[in-house]
Amino acid sequence: MPEAAPAPEEPGAVFLEEIRSQPQALRALLEHQRVYARVAAAARSRGATTVRMVGHGSSDNAASYGVYAFGLLPRWTALRDSITLTAYYHARLDMTGSTVIGLSQSGRTPDVIDYVSRARKAGAYTVALTNDVGSDLAGEAEEVLPLAAGPELAVAATKTYLNQVAALGLLAACAAGEGRRFAEDIRATADLLEGSIPALEARVRTMALPFASIGRMFVIGRGTEFATAREIALKLLETCRVAAEPLTATALAHGPVAALDPLFPVWTIASSDETLPAVVEAAERVRAAGATLVASGDAAEALGGAAYVLSVPKPPSPLLSPLLSVVPGQLFASALARARGLDPDHPAGLSKVTLAR
Amino acid sequence: MPEAAPAPEEPGAVFLEEIRSQPQALRALLEHQRVYARVAAAARSRGATTVRMVGHGSSDNAASYGVYAFGLLPRWTALRDSITLTAYYHARLDMTGSTVIGLSQSGRTPDVIDYVSRARKAGAYTVALTNDVGSDLAGEAEEVLPLAAGPELAVAATKTYLNQVAALGLLAACAAGEGRRFAEDIRATADLLEGSIPALEARVRTMALPFASIGRMFVIGRGTEFATAREIALKLLETCRVAAEPLTATALAHGPVAALDPLFPVWTIASSDETLPAVVEAAERVRAAGATLVASGDAAEALGGAAYVLSVPKPPSPLLSPLLSVVPGQLFASALARARGLDPDHPAGLSKVTLAR
Repeated sequence: MPEAAPAPEEPGAVFLEEIRSQPQALRALLEHQRVYARVAAAARSRGATTVRMVGHGSSDNAASYGVYAFGLLPRWTALRDSITLTAYYHARLDMTGSTVIGLSQSGRTPDVIDYVSRARKAGAYTVALTNDVGSDLAGEAEEVLPLAAGPELAVAATKTYLNQVAALGLLAACAAGEGRRFAEDIRATADLLEGSIPALEARVRTMALPFASIGRMFVIGRGTEFATAREIALKLLETCRVAAEPLTATALAHGPVAALDPLFPVWTIASSDETLPAVVEAAERVRAAGATLVASGDAAEALGGAAYVLSVPKPPSPLLSPLLSVVPGQLFASALARARGLDPDHPAGLSKVTLAR
Repeated sequence: MPEAAPAPEEPGAVFLEEIRSQPQALRALLEHQRVYARVAAAARSRGATTVRMVGHGSSDNAASYGVYAFGLLPRWTALRDSITLTAYYHARLDMTGSTVIGLSQSGRTPDVIDYVSRARKAGAYTVALTNDVGSDLAGEAEEVLPLAAGPELAVAATKTYLNQVAALGLLAACAAGEGRRFAEDIRATADLLEGSIPALEARVRTMALPFASIGRMFVIGRGTEFATAREIALKLLETCRVAAEPLTATALAHGPVAALDPLFPVWTIASSDETLPAVVEAAERVRAAGATLVASGDAAEALGGAAYVLSVPKPPSPLLSPLLSVVPGQLFASALARARGLDPDHPAGLSKVTLAR
């Protein structure tokens, strides 16, 4: 882990630079493809086909993606497991038949380490997915998957989140015998991302001012893009102090829509997959409630009446779209923080490594 | 299901009356104890010990509790399964070895019905938990567990949520061979609840005015009380138009704490179990950020420096505490909606049965 941060020229320079560096981070992950293939083969040979993912914050958001990657590729049941059940209540579930993936950028999150330690004793195949392969978490697990995102210095995670998503997808693809193709698709997606960042940066700058006094937002996604909705909401919370809540497109209709008004914007992620009709319907409900609609994703144009549209390219496969669709949200958070006079490199009350129980 | 609502004397009268009727609703559920025992025995004899719960809104919140009830009592892995993975992406997971519980008050939620239908074909033991045992959902599942909450007329769920929590607990207890004891504990908890409602009603009335202009809140719980945090946040959203976001005590530290300020209150649920130290720590972080702290739960007094304390009695077992700790939040939502001139019986943009995709 890095010892010292470089002195950035201005607030938010580190955060922005790390957003821009994500295509390189994805390529660096692909250098470890063989480790991912080996771990997937071990999980399969042990019959450890229930995947229990544990992490907090951005790591837990990435795990939301893992549910879909493992469900769609090797058809394994994957869940964001309750850390509390095992680490606090000591529930002693039988975990033979489970692969546990502990997600922590730093590898130092206390209750994730505790969970992994207990899960290993309960018979799980334990794997650490971390940026620090020498961390305590890595030591506690049987195997380590390098996140390989390079040093992340801004407190708000960006490239480590993106690499966690790609890593879970790659592991799932390896488990399905499709690792090589998936890795090539990640590489192609990294290229698409690189090409789209400059235009997105320009676009979000024009959006920052009208949002400068907004206090609350919903961020809506469904399926694979629920992870993206959670991560964009977290960026807005931690760097911009916006009370941004992630919701699935359907959950919006089950109550929260009642809270909407013209000062309560809704960011909606639309990608080209089977959930698009439900997302389009949710966007219609948002507009009917008089709320300002922001549309992003590779199917952003499909949402009628959006006040702001942040399109991204279509990836080689729909399962890769979360690698692209989160980036407009990261860039918007960067621009909005600056417009609000906040420093996204160092949000108040946070430190890079969270040791909280 | 009821054909017509009674004409209430004033806005919110139905919502309040349904909150008050929850002890009776719990007792009505207990009349069906034998059905719960039978379904639990069938799940066990089929080896269907992975529990997949699906629902939206309050039903999904209750499912958060089910994770702990099944994990702690029969030590079964229970998850809030992704509806999208099965109903939209058609992922075709192997569901032999799974009990599916479809949660829907009305039994008419379209994608829950679709999920249950597909899960049954995929080998799951399918169970409907619904207030309408003649509904489409009940017809699609192999077994029906009556929710038995009686007609719920207010759009915002209260007694159906509470009975869903109790029902999941009862089913889990039956699966662990502890159904009879658990049922008696529910009965004792219903009595405790009945005794505590009048004082809580008086207490929340004094709190409504200072919160009348609040736009956002966090609601924090951990373990079994995360379900409570989710449900209180949803009540505040749908009846009071407060952007209330539920967080685990630990997730707060992983980003959202940066958004806090004196106009951003935090409702914290503290119950007497192994998670209490983590909740106390989270409350300290809230106060350090200058936010107003509301403390509720049977260990509310353990949180230092709370501006408002809403204590509830301690139930016979810690696993029952969510049946008590949600009620201060329901009553507060009722009082706050009135203070804000809103009608919690009929929130804007919502209907009792949500048919949204």
